[in-house]
Amino acid sequence: MNDLDRALATRLFDRLREATHDGVGITRESFGAGESLALDMVEAEARGLGLDTRRDAGANLVVTLPGSDPALPLAACGSHLDSVPQGGNFDGAAGVVSGLLALARFRAEGFAPRRGIALYALRGEESAWFGRAYMGSSALLGRLSPEDLATPHVVSGVSMLEAMRAAGVSADRVARGERLLDPATLACWLELHIEQGPVLVARKIPVSVVTGIRGNIRHRAVECIGEAGHSGAVPRWLRRDAVFAVAELMTRLDRHWRTLLERGRDLVVTCGIVGTDPAEHALARIPGLVRFSFEARSQSEEVLEAFYDLFLSECTGIGEERGVRFRFDRRLDTAPARMDEALAWRLRAGLRDMGLPDEPIPSGAGHDAAVFAQAGVPSGMIFVRNEHGSHNPKEAMEMDDFLLGADLMARTLREVAA
Amino acid sequence: MNDLDRALATRLFDRLREATHDGVGITRESFGAGESLALDMVEAEARGLGLDTRRDAGANLVVTLPGSDPALPLAACGSHLDSVPQGGNFDGAAGVVSGLLALARFRAEGFAPRRGIALYALRGEESAWFGRAYMGSSALLGRLSPEDLATPHVVSGVSMLEAMRAAGVSADRVARGERLLDPATLACWLELHIEQGPVLVARKIPVSVVTGIRGNIRHRAVECIGEAGHSGAVPRWLRRDAVFAVAELMTRLDRHWRTLLERGRDLVVTCGIVGTDPAEHALARIPGLVRFSFEARSQSEEVLEAFYDLFLSECTGIGEERGVRFRFDRRLDTAPARMDEALAWRLRAGLRDMGLPDEPIPSGAGHDAAVFAQAGVPSGMIFVRNEHGSHNPKEAMEMDDFLLGADLMARTLREVAA
Repeated sequence: MNDLDRALATRLFDRLREATHDGVGITRESFGAGESLALDMVEAEARGLGLDTRRDAGANLVVTLPGSDPALPLAACGSHLDSVPQGGNFDGAAGVVSGLLALARFRAEGFAPRRGIALYALRGEESAWFGRAYMGSSALLGRLSPEDLATPHVVSGVSMLEAMRAAGVSADRVARGERLLDPATLACWLELHIEQGPVLVARKIPVSVVTGIRGNIRHRAVECIGEAGHSGAVPRWLRRDAVFAVAELMTRLDRHWRTLLERGRDLVVTCGIVGTDPAEHALARIPGLVRFSFEARSQSEEVLEAFYDLFLSECTGIGEERGVRFRFDRRLDTAPARMDEALAWRLRAGLRDMGLPDEPIPSGAGHDAAVFAQAGVPSGMIFVRNEHGSHNPKEAMEMDDFLLGADLMARTLREVAA
Repeated sequence: MNDLDRALATRLFDRLREATHDGVGITRESFGAGESLALDMVEAEARGLGLDTRRDAGANLVVTLPGSDPALPLAACGSHLDSVPQGGNFDGAAGVVSGLLALARFRAEGFAPRRGIALYALRGEESAWFGRAYMGSSALLGRLSPEDLATPHVVSGVSMLEAMRAAGVSADRVARGERLLDPATLACWLELHIEQGPVLVARKIPVSVVTGIRGNIRHRAVECIGEAGHSGAVPRWLRRDAVFAVAELMTRLDRHWRTLLERGRDLVVTCGIVGTDPAEHALARIPGLVRFSFEARSQSEEVLEAFYDLFLSECTGIGEERGVRFRFDRRLDTAPARMDEALAWRLRAGLRDMGLPDEPIPSGAGHDAAVFAQAGVPSGMIFVRNEHGSHNPKEAMEMDDFLLGADLMARTLREVAA
């Protein structure tokens, strides 16, 4: 990318930051004022660059470059423009700006693709506002249930559907479960996003191609039930200690996890919440109850199911050995999303052509790309190196890294659309 | 023991229960009304049996049988008459009633010992009221610090010293750190107590001799500090997960514990309180902090120190391996108390003479006997089988078991005093 690209990107990021800074970080509420303002700013910039724009039935901004063959499905790219409260400027917006850079370059160069190219600046990706993520893309693809749409805003209590309607979404169509966008009209979905983990920083790689978006199996609260007792007066052979039981369970899960990684499987495992019961625990009391959360994430449904089976069988074994029992709440599932293999190979070839290292990584977090992929649109993602994670004002993407990612986006869009 | 013993014990236990029942369990507050009432009831019963009684400078009840040689140190026995709130009737009182049964029998038989025999009905053993245990025996033996004596009552806020004064204790002497009882005037301290653990029930043994009272090393709150992060986006090799670190630590401690038991060492280990930080933990967040309590108890100081060294070295190893660090609060120590070996052998021989199994066990909970032992009085303890632990109204000691324990107490007192 050249100096013009850098100037455009810097200007747009700066303006977005200025307009939606909340004193601490960035706030662009889903289907709210900050998000609408961001869409308006990108639209104004696009028009200034001589590009066509429109709002679709989902009230998203669509910036387009027409193709010579209007019958062909479009090459689509984009990301979201909303943010979490006190979030960062790049989570979402980087994908939109990278698309705009590509279209601006094509327009400046007079590139006339066969396929039309469409940049989507989507609304409503963050779950922070309604407890449901990917609302904008899910609305487009008819994937919101009546329960989803009735979900109240975490602060105002306004339902998701009414918030959508107020933002200009064709809410009645969404409520009827209609698709606002036919996935067959898209040849691909390409999304650039900052990495929300530390892998690219640790590996010193500016840009990486995403292999897939991890799904997960979760339990909010599993209980391990043993028996409380006097910590001095009960010998080991008569104990039913819930803490030692859960410690052994987790140690075994950790060992299985390591083994699966060594066999090349994709997996992350987290017990983010663990605790004895404050109502009854004490320094000198054998713990009779531990509650813990369980989460396994993988790009592979097989790995998820296999690991979950290991989890259950270890619970059974430890229960028998240690005289405790495990009580499970409802299992929660999110399916993994596969990125399109051909598109991934094309993206990786682009990276190599640019003289950059090609080490693809999975996405642990969810993205709109997962919704498009699940609707059958061949999808691909580009991650840009970023420090300090996302959803906080400390997110740190270097402009040099971003421009490399945007270059890869432009190259790939050009190939797909040509 | 005969029917008269059974009738006396049953009557006295029933009267104590009736007089100090609080609607749920037994409440005999340390240096308070219920405790004083219990002392009065035992005193009245003792006088009715023709025994001499007095109150000592610690306001404890002392029931005596004079010896033929007043120069000899006394054979002392007893326990405490206070209880926790909503506690059980036998924790403490069983030791006092067993002593009374012995003295009543000696008196009835006209047994004239060389040594005088003294039954102590002690005050203030339970830590529930002032956060400090063994107050009565510690006051007798000059073991209460000004900090101890200033401790406020958990409900009323009255200081321990003022509560003692109100109950009739020579508070000024206690405040000056004077001993109210010269340990050299006692030939032994014998204490019968209900077992507060499940061992005798599990082993089907009515009565057992106590080998020693476990000391302990404790930490109220150790912190394991890792790094929080997105549960989906951080791979295993970049994680510093505090939960998996603590799970591995506990699993290793459990293994060391098992090994030490197999080598015949006395040890119990408890992490009664464990938890991630509710202010920052989440299902989808790698846990960056875990707080946990640590407690090791043993009759042997060597075992305690060895296990504590293992604990520290495992923390160091796991810290290095997993990129976490451990922060320790103040280490708290309670020394183990040895029971007198000669007395323990005498008690065990008595058990065998009675045709009962002789399987001695340690005491995990503390007792007044530990205070006497630490002051240099040769001390011995008898445990009586009891279900459901102590400090609750469900404690369940069978009268047959109690009478066997009381018989052992009487035999042994007779031997020591003869």
